[in-house]
Amino acid sequence: MCNRTLHIDGKIEMVDILHKVGIKAPAAEVYTALTTTEGLAGWWTTDTQGKGDDLLQFRFAAGGFDMKVLELDPGKRVLWEVVDGPEEWIGTHVVWDLAPADDYTTVLFKHQGWAEPVEFMHHCSTKWATYLVSLKSLVETGKGAAHPDDVKIDSWD
Amino acid sequence: MCNRTLHIDGKIEMVDILHKVGIKAPAAEVYTALTTTEGLAGWWTTDTQGKGDDLLQFRFAAGGFDMKVLELDPGKRVLWEVVDGPEEWIGTHVVWDLAPADDYTTVLFKHQGWAEPVEFMHHCSTKWATYLVSLKSLVETGKGAAHPDDVKIDSWD
Repeated sequence: MCNRTLHIDGKIEMVDILHKVGIKAPAAEVYTALTTTEGLAGWWTTDTQGKGDDLLQFRFAAGGFDMKVLELDPGKRVLWEVVDGPEEWIGTHVVWDLAPADDYTTVLFKHQGWAEPVEFMHHCSTKWATYLVSLKSLVETGKGAAHPDDVKIDSWD
Repeated sequence: MCNRTLHIDGKIEMVDILHKVGIKAPAAEVYTALTTTEGLAGWWTTDTQGKGDDLLQFRFAAGGFDMKVLELDPGKRVLWEVVDGPEEWIGTHVVWDLAPADDYTTVLFKHQGWAEPVEFMHHCSTKWATYLVSLKSLVETGKGAAHPDDVKIDSWD
């Protein structure tokens, strides 16, 4: 049962990126921002194409990602599978779980299935966090920080 | 060799938080921001006490963390062990690896040893990212976003 991500001394490698934001808005509004091209273009990348219930195409200066929408549970859950993009991303899953918490909607985010904790994974983890803050800002104020006006974290982006 | 973070179906739980920023400055300047109370107070929390080569005490509105400094390799590496703070943090390690990359210093960050991928870990992962962006800003511009003027991500902080 132990696969190659298990260290020889028994320590476990990380394979997931996890994040959380709390958004002061109803879950339905967060869900809209995750399932419509207009919403997605407002916090992730302005170059978003496709349909929120089928295949989504996100493009950035340096490349992009194609996501197959695997699950849509309105106001509760969105699940994407990466079907095209950087080699390290293909076959990974991006999961959004929404839940009400007082006057917030809690967003639990997971980018699961990374084979190795490579430097690119470190980069993507930090970058995802900035996009989740952008999502929060979009839903709460109407203005996100989507690419190309996103937060730059290193020489890659 | 398989411990409790191994799922019964053989899938591996994540146990680490990973991040990366690239800072347009010499590694020595980044190292100073990670190893002096003045530097640490500029990007993490203004209420930083202790010595960068011994025990560091970081306090926030909701509590804080005590870090024992385990390794100091000037311009290259800093390693802390959490000796007091929230239960989930105690015994975990925070690692900073610095390396030059063109006119940047690459900072690879790991917060290792989480027992379970609880909601608090999701929160801390996102929050760490905002503090790494704060560290980058401090070193590059002289102004970070340390607590209490840090980026708020949810109802917890």
